Amino acid sequence: MKLLSDCIACQVNVRLKDIQKLTSSEEERINLISKILEMLYNEINSGNYLMPIIATKLFRFIKDYFNNPDPYKDEKLKANIEGIKIYERLKNYVADLKELEKFHFCIKISILGNSIDFGVASYKPPTIEELLNELEKIHVVNINQFPIVKGKLILYLLDNCGEAALDKLLAEYLSELGNKVIAVVKSGSFQNDVTIDEINELKLDESFDKVIETGTDAASILIDEISEELKKLIRECNLIIAKGMAHYEYLTELNLNKPIIYMLKAKCKPVAQNLNVQQGSYVIKIS
Amino acid sequence: MKLLSDCIACQVNVRLKDIQKLTSSEEERINLISKILEMLYNEINSGNYLMPIIATKLFRFIKDYFNNPDPYKDEKLKANIEGIKIYERLKNYVADLKELEKFHFCIKISILGNSIDFGVASYKPPTIEELLNELEKIHVVNINQFPIVKGKLILYLLDNCGEAALDKLLAEYLSELGNKVIAVVKSGSFQNDVTIDEINELKLDESFDKVIETGTDAASILIDEISEELKKLIRECNLIIAKGMAHYEYLTELNLNKPIIYMLKAKCKPVAQNLNVQQGSYVIKIS
Repeated sequence: MKLLSDCIACQVNVRLKDIQKLTSSEEERINLISKILEMLYNEINSGNYLMPIIATKLFRFIKDYFNNPDPYKDEKLKANIEGIKIYERLKNYVADLKELEKFHFCIKISILGNSIDFGVASYKPPTIEELLNELEKIHVVNINQFPIVKGKLILYLLDNCGEAALDKLLAEYLSELGNKVIAVVKSGSFQNDVTIDEINELKLDESFDKVIETGTDAASILIDEISEELKKLIRECNLIIAKGMAHYEYLTELNLNKPIIYMLKAKCKPVAQNLNVQQGSYVIKIS
Repeated sequence: MKLLSDCIACQVNVRLKDIQKLTSSEEERINLISKILEMLYNEINSGNYLMPIIATKLFRFIKDYFNNPDPYKDEKLKANIEGIKIYERLKNYVADLKELEKFHFCIKISILGNSIDFGVASYKPPTIEELLNELEKIHVVNINQFPIVKGKLILYLLDNCGEAALDKLLAEYLSELGNKVIAVVKSGSFQNDVTIDEINELKLDESFDKVIETGTDAASILIDEISEELKKLIRECNLIIAKGMAHYEYLTELNLNKPIIYMLKAKCKPVAQNLNVQQGSYVIKIS
């Protein structure tokens, strides 16, 4: 999807939060957010309407300026610890569920993970009862369209730290069905997304058949930046599962010639509008 | 006060709302908000750190582009109608109050007016009981510092439409004390602020001894833009009452050599920080 005017203001707000986190000097903050305005203006003026590409460039500028390769390192660690706690509590619960019920439970918990900010200081882990209650209430648009695939090679594009711990249940279920499920994580940091540095915190190798990195720190799998290994896997795979809004924004403008299942919470108006759902909806979209 | 980094993102958000109101074409919106980014970058880069001046330029650009001298005309009319209804309901109530109680009631209702968005479609006018309840709960920082002035020439700088109707009670009270109270309104539109075009809707002449216009459509009384008449009155007056954040942001960087009473709700973090109060506080500040 191409960016809307809201995306431009949103990008200013999000990058300002990065900057405010990294320096308390108001003079420095003002200089940096001004620079962001200039870069954003130049990108749009030169016809770049893909926000994941623009956001990648702006986040890189901030990392370079502060010489900080991973500005959200602490939040990411906290998110993963909390996410894994939930995963472990749910693992036994899931084991007792039956076929379709189990499948839909795993989809729901994965997509709910997309909406939880485990890394903020104010995050209080829910009890298992609270979580199950929450899951009861969630309606996932098009959940029945998620195909029961067997014997396939699946690329599973992970999104945020914390959230990724809850993707493990769906990955394990898909593996049980006889699929080979490969987790795809970033090679360098983009916001609080999972990178190759967090695969041990998340014990991803215990739930996925393989974990590979994108070869880039970009917001999505930017085709000009990803590794040859990932390109080969994209050609070979039967299905791509793409978590979160950035992958949706980027991959819907690309023709990978592969079935893609998008799983996300439509957190903002532009994405919700594009998906034709209410803002805040949990959505499965098959393309 | 000089702008903080938050003010820059805020300005992008506010101007985007203007633009989205004035065109439904996303292409046009994107072009315009990009232009706003560029202008904002240029202003800050050239050392302009006064947001009321920057905001004035950006709002003028939008008015010029759309050839629309008053983008909030409808909201302003609705706000004034609703404000006047409240004013009329409270007028009798106030008449029965005694000295200090009456004075503080008028201050409180004026400052509460700064926080009500009377012009939005969702606005539901409160009953008089609800209003009095609301006023009971309000704590105005420094209310006791508001001096009981008599026989003075007071310039009363109005802020938003709707709100201005609630300033009438304080103006009337100050007149009763033997002061000459002059309302100062803008000559052209800035957001939803009162202009010379709304003085009849608000029947300002019934509550103020005189109404004058600034000579400009600027967010505050920009010293390089205001009329000679207003400059003369600033020199002659004994006291300035300045409603709202824009006047605070601008006048605190100027030396008018006059006592100024600022009355505002500290709606944003930068202003609250500058005033050393919690965000959302109702504040009187004497300088």
